[in-house]
Amino acid sequence: MAAPVTVYGPVISPAVARVAACLLEKDVPFQIEPVDMSKGEHKSPSFLKLQPFGQVPAFKDHLTTVFESRAICRYICDQYADRGNQALLGKKEDGAVGRAAIEQWIEAESQSFNPPSLAIIFQLAFAPMMGRTADMSVVEQNEVKLTKVLDVYDQWLGESQYFAGDDFSLADLVHLPNADFLVNRTNKAGLITERKNLTRWWDDVSARPAWKKVIQMQSAPRPS
Amino acid sequence: MAAPVTVYGPVISPAVARVAACLLEKDVPFQIEPVDMSKGEHKSPSFLKLQPFGQVPAFKDHLTTVFESRAICRYICDQYADRGNQALLGKKEDGAVGRAAIEQWIEAESQSFNPPSLAIIFQLAFAPMMGRTADMSVVEQNEVKLTKVLDVYDQWLGESQYFAGDDFSLADLVHLPNADFLVNRTNKAGLITERKNLTRWWDDVSARPAWKKVIQMQSAPRPS
Repeated sequence: MAAPVTVYGPVISPAVARVAACLLEKDVPFQIEPVDMSKGEHKSPSFLKLQPFGQVPAFKDHLTTVFESRAICRYICDQYADRGNQALLGKKEDGAVGRAAIEQWIEAESQSFNPPSLAIIFQLAFAPMMGRTADMSVVEQNEVKLTKVLDVYDQWLGESQYFAGDDFSLADLVHLPNADFLVNRTNKAGLITERKNLTRWWDDVSARPAWKKVIQMQSAPRPS
Repeated sequence: MAAPVTVYGPVISPAVARVAACLLEKDVPFQIEPVDMSKGEHKSPSFLKLQPFGQVPAFKDHLTTVFESRAICRYICDQYADRGNQALLGKKEDGAVGRAAIEQWIEAESQSFNPPSLAIIFQLAFAPMMGRTADMSVVEQNEVKLTKVLDVYDQWLGESQYFAGDDFSLADLVHLPNADFLVNRTNKAGLITERKNLTRWWDDVSARPAWKKVIQMQSAPRPS
């Protein structure tokens, strides 16, 4: 490879962790370029060329730059099709139908799971890190929304081993960062652990070596 | 084709209109199966088999079923690759890089443009249709968020003809339903028409035959 694959953003960010998990599943070597958001580096002119909204992550390889975590994950699967886990966006022989079975659950994560889970995580995990008080009315409102989504998930995962059938895929992977925060960094673990099928799924997907490596990266002390 | 392509949901719904626009661009014949949400048909057991969250649209062809509008659009482009507009998810010769340039803006629409624009549309267009009063505090909060997104869009569209370069793509198409509602069914048209590059883009994309056909379908009297 002419230039290393670079992911811009702190790996503690759920969206950055999503991309890191994908690269690890695909066995694509990469480096993290931490963007210090407390210093406003995500709004610098050079970063805005990579990500016009000034959000993390951004991504760069020897061929292109991409922003938005789920778009980056799709690109990694398409561009590095022959590396690592080759079923993340569907097996070749399953064609467009196989990919769609995955894409519909990536979209469910993006549209239905992410907004309420991220709102809860922000209040219960990130606000304290930033020295702010959690807004419990926001937590409660979003718990109501998230409960409805998780009820559907639990029922679905009673019929299907993973979101898109018998193989772990990007549909499962995109859920990992927020689910991990809920279970391990808030007092709302029960949203997942009190649902039988969701727990069976969570125990499986969170034990994958790629995800355990992301957790390790999140825990490592930042270079000073 | 063994069975007709069917889109489930009322075409007035922005997400249903998104799928209809895609099918028309791809020149794939289809039928609309209106789901009467006022009668709770979207929560019926047969509909929940197509769409486990009880939302519109759902999609069915001779090969599979798919839910979530953006996942359905991707499937249509992948499965019916040789029909109609063949650049919607990138030209074949542009490979993964070309697709990623489109995917990142589909995600920008999904993550940044859709939430605030849909909230405004709901209050200013759908609430009155349902005999409810608009909550102007929701409109104002979301106008602040949407303004920031549209400022980025306007700058970007000053440098690029369409969201992903020189060709109309799914990145533009996914924006059409909400943008059309804002311009033509609320008093917030200025959010788009007072921005020079966004207006140039809007005049172009909203004049496409496929979109004009969707507008015609939305205006047609419902069969009684």
